[in-house]
Amino acid sequence: MYSPTLILGGARSGKSALAERLAEASGKTTFYLATGVAGDGEMAERIAHHRARRSAEWTTIEEPLRLADTLVEYAREDRCLLVDCLTLWLTQVLCDADPACFARERTALLDCLPHLPGEVLLVSNEVGLGVVPMGELSRRFVDEAGRLHQAIARLCPRVLFVSAGLPFALKGLVPEGIA
Amino acid sequence: MYSPTLILGGARSGKSALAERLAEASGKTTFYLATGVAGDGEMAERIAHHRARRSAEWTTIEEPLRLADTLVEYAREDRCLLVDCLTLWLTQVLCDADPACFARERTALLDCLPHLPGEVLLVSNEVGLGVVPMGELSRRFVDEAGRLHQAIARLCPRVLFVSAGLPFALKGLVPEGIA
Amino acid sequence: MYSPTLILGGARSGKSALAERLAEASGKTTFYLATGVAGDGEMAERIAHHRARRSAEWTTIEEPLRLADTLVEYAREDRCLLVDCLTLWLTQVLCDADPACFARERTALLDCLPHLPGEVLLVSNEVGLGVVPMGELSRRFVDEAGRLHQAIARLCPRVLFVSAGLPFALKGLVPEGIA
Repeated sequence: MYSPTLILGGARSGKSALAERLAEASGKTTFYLATGVAGDGEMAERIAHHRARRSAEWTTIEEPLRLADTLVEYAREDRCLLVDCLTLWLTQVLCDADPACFARERTALLDCLPHLPGEVLLVSNEVGLGVVPMGELSRRFVDEAGRLHQAIARLCPRVLFVSAGLPFALKGLVPEGIA
Repeated sequence: MYSPTLILGGARSGKSALAERLAEASGKTTFYLATGVAGDGEMAERIAHHRARRSAEWTTIEEPLRLADTLVEYAREDRCLLVDCLTLWLTQVLCDADPACFARERTALLDCLPHLPGEVLLVSNEVGLGVVPMGELSRRFVDEAGRLHQAIARLCPRVLFVSAGLPFALKGLVPEGIA
Repeated sequence: MYSPTLILGGARSGKSALAERLAEASGKTTFYLATGVAGDGEMAERIAHHRARRSAEWTTIEEPLRLADTLVEYAREDRCLLVDCLTLWLTQVLCDADPACFARERTALLDCLPHLPGEVLLVSNEVGLGVVPMGELSRRFVDEAGRLHQAIARLCPRVLFVSAGLPFALKGLVPEGIA
């Protein structure tokens, strides 16, 4: 089965909760791939907030940079991998000390996606619908996020957009009983 | 009849004008609940712009903080209450001198919504689809706005998203003859 | 035939590429109306990026301010005019040394749109779905962009919203074979 799903939404749009409902509905063993690094207090709090909501049965893997390798390592027909979220991973590979990190990891992700068995759920923030930010890094981030979403959307049979906790399908269908 | 509608949209998306068309179409006596305080010049101008468009027959009530109490006081089977907008109210309860104001008013709003008779239209800004803002207060605002929209959307049989003056339904249906 | 289409989307949402597919599908001779001025390095790079993707057969016209006149001059039944993008044009008429430029050019655009023969595709950035920006000029820009989109959407039989390269119709239909 080939089934990656891209789940886009704004900040606090309910996109992670929707991905979690999709994971539960898959009936597979869920692995939660957290890309966030619990560095400062605010991020630690956000991660704890997400963790508190997740099923105790889920296995959590933390990986800030090498996303493709982690997906390839854990993907199996009877598993659901939930990546939360691409936005943090993108920030981290863009800001890595190794300037080649971003291009290498991005290519690896796009290359592996069509070949992953099982269910894969990719959560990401839509960040391009406000005014263009002033800082050069922020502008680069918005550009690369938009381009990444386009590239991933081409590889995914299902793309959902979430606002106020409510999904609508940009591609494919919203599964019944999820909304 | 139980019918609150959440109307989400960006700045100048036409969400207020859509809410006004819904109010007119309800055939009920409309009460306009303005949460904006005409403090500085820019806000006064915006309020005048909105007021000029509204029917002269509408009653306007200004209430920056105690939204739930005002809704409960005015709601009646034969009335339509149009709240414009939740965003300003949220800013004001978050910034109130009383730190307990936000939690108390938020809870009161969510508690009263399912029990209000008549038609209730809640206009709010979607603010989470740009880059995460730098300031801590702005980030808090974006987070609380997103969480509030999710909580209200769960209580509303109809949630509309507006862009370029055009509504689409995230939940329920766009009423005919409104778009 | 009367057929202007408004194509809204965020930064790097794939809205220009979608407009280009619509232009190709029109079967008409395409004129590309670039509103961007290749001033600084970043803009020159963006324009080159767009230009590289376009068909070599297209004619490019650069016009930063007098959009309505250019549309009227070039529009013909057997042509497709692709305007990329309204956002840059709006910024430029708002910032023009002549303070009357914005109102004059805006009115001229709205006046000419319903009378243009052939196919017209208008690409623009949705910028109102993030937090309200701090600067007065940015706020004015967000307001005028939102109002312009509403006014143009009323005149267009088709309005498409693009996210992650995927269109959905706010008005009219997404043409088959385009998405």
